[in-house]
Amino acid sequence: MKFCPNCSTPLTLVVPAGDNRPRHVCPGCNAIHYQNPRIVTGTVCTWGERILLCKRAIEPRYGYWTLPAGFLEIGESVGDGAVRETTEEAGAKIELHGVYSMIDVIHAEQVHVFYRASMLGPQLDPGPESLEARLFEENEIPWDDLAFRTVISTLRWFVADRREGRFSLHTDSIVYRPKTLTEVPSGNAPV
Amino acid sequence: MKFCPNCSTPLTLVVPAGDNRPRHVCPGCNAIHYQNPRIVTGTVCTWGERILLCKRAIEPRYGYWTLPAGFLEIGESVGDGAVRETTEEAGAKIELHGVYSMIDVIHAEQVHVFYRASMLGPQLDPGPESLEARLFEENEIPWDDLAFRTVISTLRWFVADRREGRFSLHTDSIVYRPKTLTEVPSGNAPV
Repeated sequence: MKFCPNCSTPLTLVVPAGDNRPRHVCPGCNAIHYQNPRIVTGTVCTWGERILLCKRAIEPRYGYWTLPAGFLEIGESVGDGAVRETTEEAGAKIELHGVYSMIDVIHAEQVHVFYRASMLGPQLDPGPESLEARLFEENEIPWDDLAFRTVISTLRWFVADRREGRFSLHTDSIVYRPKTLTEVPSGNAPV
Repeated sequence: MKFCPNCSTPLTLVVPAGDNRPRHVCPGCNAIHYQNPRIVTGTVCTWGERILLCKRAIEPRYGYWTLPAGFLEIGESVGDGAVRETTEEAGAKIELHGVYSMIDVIHAEQVHVFYRASMLGPQLDPGPESLEARLFEENEIPWDDLAFRTVISTLRWFVADRREGRFSLHTDSIVYRPKTLTEVPSGNAPV
């Protein structure tokens, strides 16, 4: 951030009066331009016992499998965003069952929120952000080819909770480490 | 948003290729400047049976009582942000017990998240954003003088859940309506 989006004056990085950290401040119009983490919202969505995943047609992680999810937009609720993303990426008609996981992805400046959801019919119609949308039995989940750590964690929790017969909110914080093969469970083992 | 924060070129509002809504796009450097809701994070914090509230020393809602909360910053988890805000606004040392409420405030382009928390000692030391920090017995809660709808909802849920002896995650979406006196419970009635 170099120029004021209000008036185009070059910005300064200073601690404003009454604040305790550097902000982008405009010496022209005095606006303070805060930067904050963004919310990614999505679903763990089932049709019967099968779980819906989408194969990414965009970077990052092109060709890897993900739970349908994307950035929360201005003007919508976190839940409405989860439904919209599932519709856009998989073409699924769904109903939500509540917030299931909330994971800080600190290095990416994001918070990922996943809802449990059910499909209202088996139809899928993947949009341009997906190469494919598909329902996976638990023993078919492509653990080695999942796109993001938050997807891996949420699916692990979901599979374990479903075996126990009860679901509760899960939270976690992810700190950046380069991904290695040993961090991803091999084969189809969920844990 | 009128000028590109990267290169100061006047921005255009167009639907980028592959997107489905207008964005601020720079014809100079081709950057797309997305705008997204922000997270406000805070606590419902107790010392014994009493609940911690802060009297706001800043606008909006100067002089009204609030749960300690503020914008999530880059580089911190939602939970760490809740602890930081409680420290900054009340000077309380606390421990978190989990996410308690998540409320969309759509017209404000915010999502409010509150954690349950306990104070580790009775000491309070309100910072510059608070006129006062104080512990309230349930029958002392100033329902008529609370700052925000998300604070009212979260306190109502908390008081009711505590009577039942069990806490669960609460979610809601708030749609803008001008506030009227009849929407705020009168006297000390929590519901």
